[in-house]
Formats: sequence, structure tokens, C-alpha cells
Amino acid sequence: MPGAGRAAGVRRLRPQPSEEPPAQEEDQNLLLAAAYVSDAQYNRNVPFETSPRAIRLYYFYNHWTMQVAIYFFICVDLSLALFEEPALFPLPFLATSLAEVLCLTAFFGRLVHFAKVTPQMVFWKDTKNICIMVTIVLTLIDLIIYGSLEAVNVHSVRWSRALRPVFLINFPESRQIRRTFRSIRNTLPDILYVFLLFMFSVLMFSLMALKLFGDRGLKTVEGLPYFTNILDIVFELYVLVTTANSPDVMMPAYNFNWWYCLYFITYTIINTYIFMSVFLAVVYNNYRKHLKNEIRKLAYLKRHKMIEAFNILKVKVGTEFVVMEAQWRRLAKVVAPHISSPHLELLLRISDEGQKGHVDKVNFLRLADLLNIQVVTINIRRHPLEDWMPRVYRSSASLLVQRMVQHRIFVWVYDVIILINAIFIALDERNPFISYAEWLFLSLYIIEILLKLYTYEPRAYFGRRQFWNWFDTLIIIAALVATVANTTIQSARKYNSQQILDIVLILRILRLLRIIVSIQRFRVIVTTLINIGPTILTFGGLVLVVYYVFAIIGMEAFHGKVRFSDPNFTSPDALVCGNPALKDSAFARDRYCKNNFNDLASSFIVLMELTVVNQWHILAGGFALVTHQAAKLYFIGFHIVVVILIVNIFIAFILEAFFVAYSLEKSEVETAIEKKIQELGVGIQEEEMQDGKLVDNVDAKDSGFSGDDGDNKRKDLKGLYFRIASKKYRTVDALLQQMFESEIAPEEEGPSLDEILNFSPGDLYPKNPNFENSA
Amino acid sequence: MPGAGRAAGVRRLRPQPSEEPPAQEEDQNLLLAAAYVSDAQYNRNVPFETSPRAIRLYYFYNHWTMQVAIYFFICVDLSLALFEEPALFPLPFLATSLAEVLCLTAFFGRLVHFAKVTPQMVFWKDTKNICIMVTIVLTLIDLIIYGSLEAVNVHSVRWSRALRPVFLINFPESRQIRRTFRSIRNTLPDILYVFLLFMFSVLMFSLMALKLFGDRGLKTVEGLPYFTNILDIVFELYVLVTTANSPDVMMPAYNFNWWYCLYFITYTIINTYIFMSVFLAVVYNNYRKHLKNEIRKLAYLKRHKMIEAFNILKVKVGTEFVVMEAQWRRLAKVVAPHISSPHLELLLRISDEGQKGHVDKVNFLRLADLLNIQVVTINIRRHPLEDWMPRVYRSSASLLVQRMVQHRIFVWVYDVIILINAIFIALDERNPFISYAEWLFLSLYIIEILLKLYTYEPRAYFGRRQFWNWFDTLIIIAALVATVANTTIQSARKYNSQQILDIVLILRILRLLRIIVSIQRFRVIVTTLINIGPTILTFGGLVLVVYYVFAIIGMEAFHGKVRFSDPNFTSPDALVCGNPALKDSAFARDRYCKNNFNDLASSFIVLMELTVVNQWHILAGGFALVTHQAAKLYFIGFHIVVVILIVNIFIAFILEAFFVAYSLEKSEVETAIEKKIQELGVGIQEEEMQDGKLVDNVDAKDSGFSGDDGDNKRKDLKGLYFRIASKKYRTVDALLQQMFESEIAPEEEGPSLDEILNFSPGDLYPKNPNFENSA
Repeated sequence: MPGAGRAAGVRRLRPQPSEEPPAQEEDQNLLLAAAYVSDAQYNRNVPFETSPRAIRLYYFYNHWTMQVAIYFFICVDLSLALFEEPALFPLPFLATSLAEVLCLTAFFGRLVHFAKVTPQMVFWKDTKNICIMVTIVLTLIDLIIYGSLEAVNVHSVRWSRALRPVFLINFPESRQIRRTFRSIRNTLPDILYVFLLFMFSVLMFSLMALKLFGDRGLKTVEGLPYFTNILDIVFELYVLVTTANSPDVMMPAYNFNWWYCLYFITYTIINTYIFMSVFLAVVYNNYRKHLKNEIRKLAYLKRHKMIEAFNILKVKVGTEFVVMEAQWRRLAKVVAPHISSPHLELLLRISDEGQKGHVDKVNFLRLADLLNIQVVTINIRRHPLEDWMPRVYRSSASLLVQRMVQHRIFVWVYDVIILINAIFIALDERNPFISYAEWLFLSLYIIEILLKLYTYEPRAYFGRRQFWNWFDTLIIIAALVATVANTTIQSARKYNSQQILDIVLILRILRLLRIIVSIQRFRVIVTTLINIGPTILTFGGLVLVVYYVFAIIGMEAFHGKVRFSDPNFTSPDALVCGNPALKDSAFARDRYCKNNFNDLASSFIVLMELTVVNQWHILAGGFALVTHQAAKLYFIGFHIVVVILIVNIFIAFILEAFFVAYSLEKSEVETAIEKKIQELGVGIQEEEMQDGKLVDNVDAKDSGFSGDDGDNKRKDLKGLYFRIASKKYRTVDALLQQMFESEIAPEEEGPSLDEILNFSPGDLYPKNPNFENSA
Repeated sequence: MPGAGRAAGVRRLRPQPSEEPPAQEEDQNLLLAAAYVSDAQYNRNVPFETSPRAIRLYYFYNHWTMQVAIYFFICVDLSLALFEEPALFPLPFLATSLAEVLCLTAFFGRLVHFAKVTPQMVFWKDTKNICIMVTIVLTLIDLIIYGSLEAVNVHSVRWSRALRPVFLINFPESRQIRRTFRSIRNTLPDILYVFLLFMFSVLMFSLMALKLFGDRGLKTVEGLPYFTNILDIVFELYVLVTTANSPDVMMPAYNFNWWYCLYFITYTIINTYIFMSVFLAVVYNNYRKHLKNEIRKLAYLKRHKMIEAFNILKVKVGTEFVVMEAQWRRLAKVVAPHISSPHLELLLRISDEGQKGHVDKVNFLRLADLLNIQVVTINIRRHPLEDWMPRVYRSSASLLVQRMVQHRIFVWVYDVIILINAIFIALDERNPFISYAEWLFLSLYIIEILLKLYTYEPRAYFGRRQFWNWFDTLIIIAALVATVANTTIQSARKYNSQQILDIVLILRILRLLRIIVSIQRFRVIVTTLINIGPTILTFGGLVLVVYYVFAIIGMEAFHGKVRFSDPNFTSPDALVCGNPALKDSAFARDRYCKNNFNDLASSFIVLMELTVVNQWHILAGGFALVTHQAAKLYFIGFHIVVVILIVNIFIAFILEAFFVAYSLEKSEVETAIEKKIQELGVGIQEEEMQDGKLVDNVDAKDSGFSGDDGDNKRKDLKGLYFRIASKKYRTVDALLQQMFESEIAPEEEGPSLDEILNFSPGDLYPKNPNFENSA
């Protein structure tokens, strides 16, 4: 009886809070509440069992070591394709299959672990888990069949390898990739109709081209008949949509008669510009719609979990239910064991505004947000040299050096040095004078870093957010090491190691990047780009999945058909890529032989080239020649999936990230924290910290220049400054979620768990018009 | 004293309304009020003089004949480039210069006319007018210099021709194009910094490429040295950003060493994908910001003008100021002389809800919106045949035919016929059986149209919104005429006219488009596309301006350098495009000789090819060879302007059009009208009319099938049905404006005229957070 089971499942999820828990149960309850709060904090959206054993298992399940382990096994599983036939680094079948079985065991173990902590009904209703199980079984079947056929020397296809990305997608940790896939799946119906209409338009134009140009006896540049076969025309016109054969496809008709170019211009405007923009609009619109729905779901789930936690810990004081201060402290310590006690004190001050010794419901519900806000605690420490030899460090000469380093001119001088360095790099380095200059520049850079370390407190200089300081130092040290290594090798063996030389060159040029830091406007753009970095990495996961599947298929289908042997293309075999079918083809003429599917790395590079689109018809044409035209379907399929869907999602991604970053203000919780920080007088002005620009000022404070202003309020948070990490460092997700949360009234309980889990984007509109409009 | 003059100007703009105007002034006042309302209705945003003579001139200025005339002269002026050296159709210099002077006179006259109706201060503060005057003077100077030099046989440059688009941009009627230009101008600072950073990145990568690949002695496919010259590298890498030379530029390095492909992949991800997306994001963000500011300005101006009109006409009734019904009627008749009296009656019913004989202020302010809403009035008329021979038309055989035609199966049968027709078209038409079949299909289509005309009322069938009916009929008639003409010529002279045959072919294939109408989902997409059509046309104006300027420059710079002579490329001169410098170049090898700047039409086609981007490095390379590399700057400039700015604006355009179309609801004014229509019982259900799909039902009603239901309320609007034209037919502008207007309180007077005219986008955010977020 599924209905009854489900009701039971839901009941189990909402334990009736015993208002005055006996002492022996208290620890257990605290752990349970902490699990809820931690889920809310990290946006985990799966319900868990509430029995004591399950909670302990749940803590273990969420431990970072377990997550690292599972990602490790996923990496191993995916990279097996490098070692299997066709291999980059061949390994025997036995080794790779053993590794695969090991990975499958790990995945299965993780799944069993998950089943132990989740209510049965929820576990079995979740398609993710079913997917993983089916994939494990299919992979095992495939391994057995392939292994036994191999044993009798029959070569078959390892088809289950294309399923491997299922593990990457379906483990609960890859929420972002899964969401993008869901968003693609939901976009499919809308895209499909536009695509059909688009194909209809291509077919109509093909028919027209056949009638207009087919009987003219025109020839292409290669001397082949022009537009005589309807299938070829459809392919050529499809390629024209990607612009890869423009204007070549037009030239014969245009050379024949001026007016025919109108046909191609019309075609380009309709199919390339308008239809491709419509694809982008449809994909983007759906992406936004689903993103919002998911965010809404997460926001309600978070609220739901925080209420559960509150119900467990609440006690009645006067007329209202509250959580006592001691209980709150213990909870916070369990949820965030690494939090510093001044930070905890700060959070308590915010939650318990009136210092009444307890936290009320509204303030308690904010706990997950409070913990999520990155408060940078800055220890006010003096420079170690000042402690060590105060007299020397505070001498007038030393102070002069410090003031010099902090001066603008110091930065400008180094900008000029970088520019001169750039010119020297561009010049010929075989000139001995110039290679000596390289040593000079390197030492100048090292002196700069040493001077800065002398002036600023080292721990502040290498703070967590000081991206550019880290960048600088690492580049310089790496360049130093590489240059020394290169010189040593050179003088010892009279031989230049090409790899090390290349690395030295790249490092030398990367140093020039520092000039960006000096120009405010540039730094702002770069900071924005760095901040959307994590989002782009998620996207990288998505691309990896699609590429992997296509690479496996491509390797099975085209392995060995095209071979690259001779870098100088001198032998006749090398000139046709080892396949006589490619004689006189554009593929061989352009020397594309290395663009083949003979191993995973090469396949990825070909797929990258196909994503960039240009010349893809030549690549497709080459493989079509060696496979009797069947390959064209593979290449068109790849184009539809990657260029029409994925690249458009990527653009939607970036646009959304920019717009959200542009349009958002501080959240209410942040404002509360900031107000409290200011009240307690332990804040650093945001302006000073903007874009991490005036790190000088902060460092100056840290090194004690600003002196002690002896504020009384500051006494329990002594020696610490706080500031809220800039909103620029937050992800699009967090910003959107914050936007939606500000729409839920603080008292609102939200819909029930079942309702939340079944939200659909359609529900969104009538209920939350403002939220709908606001992003 | 500008300050005093300005204050005077403002005072003149706001005449103190005399509360009880003497009879002789009344007509004058009505005209003035009507001018205000008409400005509000058409969103004209220039203040005008209020003296009686100026108002009459203003009416004349806004008359459609004047607008058509000015556009005619703009067209003539722009198309002069077709007849001037280098000409497509050469005309003597005297003829073209006379035509140009004539156009300039017309422009000057229009400007003088405008000066007469506008307050002096406003006229002289407006850069548009200054621009036009300066351009007229410069053109005259250029004409005189060129003419006198020509007289002494010295050839000089007609540089002022590049200024001609100024007239298209700056006349007040091209508001949309001007707005896009303003938006581009405002985007420039933001784009500039991203562009500089992008160029910095390209330079860094170039330096790296020089060091990594320069000394390897690699060769390109053509056997040229690979990546040895820093300028060539920068150009090649810039081309790679456009993807036009991918993967060719990578292949030599990749063939040499596997690892070097990482350099190119990194480059592509950073510069092609990320930077190009950032360009789109910046352009789009600015476009939205400025669009909103302009819309806000328009909305406030509209409100302002309606208040002026109200102040002129108001009389005091009881405690409030109102406009009397008679006055309102006369006003509406002046503003919209072609409005039908039932329609006017409907609007009055809405404005004077209580039928009190006067219209209050809030309702009066809605007048411009009411007039703007397209209410389709449908006359209930019987089929003419029914009047003419009722017995035959109502006979059972005739009714059977009518029912048959209205049936779904009728549509399906014709869909099948179209598909069969498509197959016949694809087959070889020299087969006599197939060419006879063509006549069969043509007659089947004609029968279909006749049957429909028999069943449906002809005036309803050819209603204004019945796009597909018009399309069908025109295509079939044109095909009939062309086929008959072709057959006549063929039988008379045994000769096929190629042009007519081509037209017949195209018409025959366009007929297939009808299949789209049968599929609901397709029709929706096509309707959306047709609706953003006007927006795309505006955009076409923008592209025309940019192309024109670049074409004129290109013609002056590259005229005659590349020549196309022989379509079969048999003579050695034809093989190098008439220029020995092109020997062995990719430009000549790909037979691009016809891609030249020898006349306006060819130039436009080359620019179109450059917009599509593919192979643009070959085009640029060809012209670089014949001009000693200088041409590359022209081509890179074109790429930056058109591909980075204009194409991104186009995408922003389409995205915005889609989003606004998706997200908007009915406006409050429309709801009022609809309510009233329903109340009066003269409405047609919206569902019935959705997408113009069930035209059958409406026609059925029209032809009297639904009978008279004898509704009493309907009596004063007898014989008419109303419905609001679907919101799909509205432009993005109108939708956005409506969105913003709903935020202005009905009583709000808005800021003063001066404030409105000086709005900047920055003001927008604090004041209207909701509006800011809502689009």
C-alpha cells in the first residue's frame, strides 16, 4: 500500500517535539537539530531518517572525506577510457575491468549508505538512485559479455562506457549539473517545435535551391557539380546555418548571376540570424523559468528544515517558544565546529538582540543564513618584525621604506618595469644582453615582494581573499625555480629542456598580467569574471558529460579510420591520413589527419573544434568519406546538442550571472550583521575594502598604525575586526535564493514537504508575481 | 541670457487655461488640445508652439503626406550612390549633383518647417537639428569642391557621401533607430574597457605564441612560416576570436606536438567564449537600461501632454473639473477622424462610466491609450450570395458544400495535396506527366480558394488580420499569372524566359509554406516572428546606416583594385581577379573576385559576408595584398562595429522582444474596454479568435449562422462585434510603456517638462525599483 507507506514516511519526517526532553535524549535531539540546520545551510534537499543510528550515519554520509572519496572514484571511472582500447596509454583489459568493478562497488556502497539514512519511500521514488542502480547492473552485464567474447577472441563494443557520466550526474553532490540537465530536458519540447520549423525552412530552401541551381551546370571551386543532389543541398544549407561554409557555398551561383546572392542572403537572415536567436531566446527563457522554480523549492525546504530544528529545541518562556542561549551555542558548535568564538559571540548578539538569554523563532530561523555569511575576522596583529626587533623596525629609515612601499609611485614604478619587461620579452632572446636582463627583472620582482612583506603583516598579505598577492608570489617563485633549473641543466649538459623552457616562457609572460591590477576598471571586470568562475566550472562538468558520451561513441565508430603518422606529411600515406578514401579531400589537403578519434584526448580535441564550429563541414566531410556518409549524422547530432543547446545554455548562464550580479542589493540578514558589527565598533569600512583594493589600509591597521582607540564596547571581541565578504564573491544561486527568501514572510511556515518536492514551474507564476518579475 | 529665455520658453509651453473660453477661441483651443492628444497617442516627444498659426503648421507638419515626402527624399539621397562613380548604373555628375541639391533643399525645408512649430530654445538645443544643418552645409561644400576639381580634371574624394545616413537618423520620425544609436553610444565606455582588456589578453597570447612557436621552424599548409612575426600573430589570433580560422591556425603546432593544442583551447575559451559573452552581457545590460529610461521619459511626456489637453478643455461641474461630452466627441473626431461612430460610442461609454454627460480627469487622461488600442469592429453581414440568390445559397446541396469546407477533413485533404505537390516538385520536371500535374495542383488550389470564398463572407475572409488568407490568395494568383505568361512565351517563341521560370519556381515552393498554418504550434512561433518583424525592420535601418558608411569608405578605398570579369575563370587575368598581387592568394584560389567594392550593391554583399564572419580573414587578406596591408584596419574596424556591437544589439533586441512578449498581461485600460464590450454584449470570445485560428467560427457568425440572440443592450451598437486585437500584435515598446504607465498613479502629474527631457538612466533606479526589476 504505497499511500499508507507514504503517510507513514511523512509522519516519521515530522517528529512530534516533546516540549521538555528528558536529559538523556537531549544530546540526541541536538544532533538531529544540527543535522537539520546543516542541511539548511548547505541546501541539501533530501529528507533523512530521524532514528539515532540514522542520524549518526547521516553525519558520516555528509563528511567531506566521503565526498572526496566518491569524486575520486568518479574520476577514476571516467578516466578509464584513457587506458582502454583505443587507448592513449594501453593497459590490459583485466586491469581496467578490475578498476571498473572497484569503482562500481564504491558507487554501490555509497548508494546503500544513502538508502540507510533516507526514508524508504523517498529513496525509491528518486529517479537518481534508480538510474545509478540500473547503470551499475548494465555496466556489469557489458563487462561480462565483453570479457567472455574477448576470451574467445571476438571483438565487440563496450557500449556501457557511454553510461559512465551517469554517476557524475546522479550523485546528490552534483546538484548544479543535474539542474542544468533538467533545464535542458524541460526545454526540449519548446526547442523541438522551433527546430522542426527550422528544418522545414531548410528543406523548403533546399527544394528551391535544387530547382534554381540544379540544372545550371555550375561547378564548385573543386570542380564538383554544384547543388544537384537534394541530400547534399540539405547538408550544405545546414552547414550554412553554422556559417562554416559561407560565402563559399554562395560563390558559384553569385559568379553566375548577381541576383542569386539574394537567395543566400535571405537564407542567412532567416535561418542563421533569426532562428538561432530564437533558439537562444527559448533556451534562456526556459533556463530562467526552471532556475527560479528550483530556487524557490530550495528556499522553502530550507525554511522547512529550520522549523523542524526549532521545534526540536524549543522551550516555553513566558507566552512564546524560544531556544535557550546555552542550547543555541551548543547547536552552533555542532553545526560549524570550526567557527571562532568571537564570531559565534557576534552571531549570538545578532540573534539575541535584547540579551535576554534566549533566541526567539524568527531569529532562530535565520541561523543557517547567518552561518552562511562569510564574516572575515581580521586579527589585529603587529608585524612580526616589530615584535622581534622593535627598535630597528620603527627606526626612521625603516619607516621611510614602509611609507615608500605604500606610496602610489611605488606601484607606478613597477608598472613601468613590467612594460619594459614586455618589450624585452618581445625582443630576440638569443642576444646575451637580453638574457641577462631577464635575471635583472626577476630580481626586481623578488625585491618587490620582499619589500611588501616587510611593510605589510605577512598573514594579512597572504589573506584568503588576496588573490593577486598569491598570484604574484606564486608566479615569481615558479619562475625563479624554473629559471634556475633551466640554467643548471643548460650549464651541466649543454642542452635546453624544451618543456622547462616553455614553462619559463609562459611564466614570464603571465607576470605581465599584473599590470591589470593597477588599473581599477580592469580589476573590476576581472573580479567579475573570477566570481562567475565557479559557475563556469559547473558548466565545464556539463560539457565534460556530453563530450565524454560523444567521444566514446566516436571512438567506437571511427577508431583507426584516420591515422596521423608523419608530422611533415612527406610520405604518400601520411598525405591521405592512412586512408585512400581521403585522397584529394579537403580534410587531407588541410592536414587534419591528427583530428581523429583514435584515443580519448584526440576525440576531445576534435569535439572542441566542432564546438567552435568553423570548418566542421570539412571534418564531417572527411569522416563521411571513410564511413560512406554515415558519419554526417553523428556530426549533425553533435552540432544540435552542443551548439544549439549547450552553448546557448552557457550564454544564458553568463548573461544571468551578470544581470544578477548587477542588480542585487544586500540581504536583510547581512544588513543586520553589518549593523551589529558597526554597533560593536569592530567593523572596517566597506569602502576601504572595496575590491580588495586598499589592502594597504587594512594592513596598515593590522600592523598597528591606526593605533588603539580604546573603544569600550569592543572588549569581548578584542583584537578582532570583522567585515562581510563582498557580495561579489557570492554565486548566482545564492543571490537568487536570497532574493526569493526576502519574499517569504518571517512567520510563514511554507507549504508541506510533499508539496515542496512536487513544485512545478507553472505554479510559480500566480503565487509570486514579484519574484517572477524580479530576475 | 539663456536662463531667461528658457524660463520664457517653458512658460509659453504651459498656457494658463482660461476656465470659460469665449466662443471664438473654442475652435482654436480644441485644435491645440487635439494636437496634445495626438502627440500623446503617437509618442511624439517634442514640445510645440501654441500660437494658432504654429498649431496649424504643426498639423501640416505631422500630416502623413509630408512624412512620406521626406522619406522619399531620404531614399533618393541614399540611392544616389548607385549612380555616382563607382556606379552600378552610371549617370553624369551633373545629374546626381542636381538630385542631391534637390534633396538637400527638401531637408532644409523640412527643418525650417520644424523650426516654425517648435519653441526657439528647444529647437536650438536639439543636437538633431544642428546635425542636419551641419551635414547640409558640409555636403554643399564637398559638392562645390568636387565639382570644380572635376571641371579641371582632378579626381578627388566625395567624402560627404558617408554623411548621408545622418538624414535618415536625425529626422524626428526615426526615433527607434536613433534610440539604438544612443544606446550604442552610451554603451561605448563600458564596452571600451572590456575591449581593452580583451586586446590586452590577445597581445599577451600573441607574445606567448611568438615565444612558443616562433623558433620552431613550423610551416603552414601553404608552406609559409608559422607564427614568426608578432603583427601577423596578433591578426591571426584576432581572427581566431571570430573562429574564422579555427582549427587551421592550430594544426601546424598541434601536428608538431600534442600539448600545444592546450594553448589554443585556452585561448578559445577565454577570448572567444568568455569575452564574447561578456560583450553580449554588457551590450544587453546597457540596452535594457537605456530602453527603460527612454520609455519612462515617453510615459511621463504622454501624461504631461494629456494634462495640458485636459487643462485647455476643462470646465467646472460641481466641485471637480471635467470635460463635457460634446467637447470630448469633437476632440476625438479631430484626433482620429477615421474612427467609426460605434467605436467612438464604445470609447465614450468607457470614459463616461456613469453616463453623466461629462468625462472626469482620470478617464480623460486615458484617451490616448484608448485610441491606441486596436479594437477590431466586425460587421455582421450576410454572404453577398445569400442576398443575391438566397434560395440557391441556402439549398441543401449548397449547405452541404459549406459544411464540408468548414470541416477539419477539408484542411487535412489539402495538407496531403500540398505534400504530394512537394514530392512532385522535387522530381524531375522535364517529364511531361509531371509538368501536367503542375496544372492540376494549381487548379486544385484555385478551387480551394473559390470554395472558401463561397462559404465565408469575402470581406471577413480578406480581413485586415487574416495574414494567411492574403498570403494564400496572392501566391496562387501570382503563380497562375506567371505560369500562364511562361506558357504563352514558350509556345510563341519556343524559348524559356529564365527570370519568369525562376519566379514560377519560387512561387510554387512558397505555396508549401501553407502547411505551417495547419499545425498550431508552428503557427504560434511564426506569429511571434511576424510580430517582432517591425522591430527587426527598425534594426534593418540601423544596419543600412552602418553598411552605407562602410560601403562608401570601401568604395573610395578599394574601388577597381579587384575585378571580376570571366564567370568561368578561364583567362589568366580572371584567375588573379585582374590584379597580379593576388597571384597564389587564398582570395583568388577561392574565386572571390566578385567580392569587391566596385559598386554599392557589391559592397553591400561583401559587408554582409563579413557580418557572417566566416572566411573574413581571406577577404581581408585579399584586400590587404592589393593595398599593402592597410586594408586590414578597415576589416577589423568593421568587425568591431558590426559583429561586436550591432549583432549583439540585435540579439539583445530579439531576446528582449521575446521576454516582454512572454511576460506581459493585459493592461488596465484594455481590461476596462473588454469589460465594457462584454457588458454591452458585443464581444466575441477571445478563445474563438485565438491566433486567428477559428476564423471559421467568426465567419460563421458573420454569415448569420449564429442567428440573432436579440440582446437589448446591443441596440445602439447594432450589427457590430468588437474585439481587442491580440496583444501579440503589439511592439516591445508599447508593452514596456504600458508596464511603466501602470506604475504611475492616475492622479500623479509627474515631473516638469524640463526634468523629463533631462532624465538619465541613473535616476531610474532609486525611484522605481519595481519597474527596474520587472523587465
